[in-house]
Amino acid sequence: MQFSSQLLENAVNEFAKLPGIGKKTALRLVLHLIKQDRGEVENFSGIIAKMRNEIKFCKRCFNISDTDFCNICSNRARQQKLLCVVENIRDVIAIESTQQFNGVYHVLGGVISPLDGIGPEQLTINALLERIKNEAAEEVIFALSPNIQGDTTIYYIGRKLKEVQVKITTIARGIAFGGELEYADEMTLAKSISNRIPVENYITA
Amino acid sequence: MQFSSQLLENAVNEFAKLPGIGKKTALRLVLHLIKQDRGEVENFSGIIAKMRNEIKFCKRCFNISDTDFCNICSNRARQQKLLCVVENIRDVIAIESTQQFNGVYHVLGGVISPLDGIGPEQLTINALLERIKNEAAEEVIFALSPNIQGDTTIYYIGRKLKEVQVKITTIARGIAFGGELEYADEMTLAKSISNRIPVENYITA
Repeated sequence: MQFSSQLLENAVNEFAKLPGIGKKTALRLVLHLIKQDRGEVENFSGIIAKMRNEIKFCKRCFNISDTDFCNICSNRARQQKLLCVVENIRDVIAIESTQQFNGVYHVLGGVISPLDGIGPEQLTINALLERIKNEAAEEVIFALSPNIQGDTTIYYIGRKLKEVQVKITTIARGIAFGGELEYADEMTLAKSISNRIPVENYITA
Repeated sequence: MQFSSQLLENAVNEFAKLPGIGKKTALRLVLHLIKQDRGEVENFSGIIAKMRNEIKFCKRCFNISDTDFCNICSNRARQQKLLCVVENIRDVIAIESTQQFNGVYHVLGGVISPLDGIGPEQLTINALLERIKNEAAEEVIFALSPNIQGDTTIYYIGRKLKEVQVKITTIARGIAFGGELEYADEMTLAKSISNRIPVENYITA
């Protein structure tokens, strides 16, 4: 792309560094910003810079937070002994959006994946184990992606917790709402049959 | 979406204001920025703010510019009497990227479209007419989108230039490279036959 303005070119290059944004999309975004009021664009850039400078990770659950402890951890109305273990912050947002979970979280920062060089030390697993013991957690729910890495992580943490008095569960695998039975993979279908639930539970859930 | 951080939520909302960026994409972009160094993100936001504050429109051709006159207009190596009339800045970038045009531009800011309330007064048409007369332009090439609005604009400006000694041309319409003949619309195919060119011209072009 040939630009007649260095300012324009710099701005396009900055946007094009973002994931999934190519040069053409970046140009579209920048030309949109040029059409906005100066105050609006200053607001945009100010909010981004402020966010990066001030955002923290919760010292307890490693969720994103404005303060030392996130507002889920500091909410006394939530069950502090019910822990949901997730891979990343996006998962916290997804589960919170269901408004069905009233416990607290623990963000691992990923799953064990030796091929990618990610072992237990790269994750917040030690902090999780400490936390379960210190806080006398009653139940740990694993809400990890249903793949080998996720299962390995569950298995690894589960073994470390063998001596600890805590209930360990994982979210249900099964046919998704709106999913067609005939297109489901065999593993999911098999799991959904072996973990079948009584209809009365299904209806009240 | 439920966020546990106001800073995160504000940043996501800002990104989601951009065209074609939904909440989920905005979240992905913001989480990417959180992973970057603080300096990098400050750089990003600084470049965007600086761009909006300092960018100008060329006083002659209305192209985007860092200075009063854009670097195409101030380039003495370019044919200043050969004007290419385009709809917007994106078109300038597209034509510049071909590296085939050595004249200068005039950015209209749109095309005449009465249904959208855009008449000649909303565009830089008067400035174009003045410019053609004052600068004694030799040729005006219309590079507008091939639709009724584009054609109306060409017709309107062409009539205004009836008394002026200037050659008026428009970019060729025809079958695009890689386009399949059988899928071309009738209008394009008809134009490409009536405006056929001798093979020797085609090969040397």
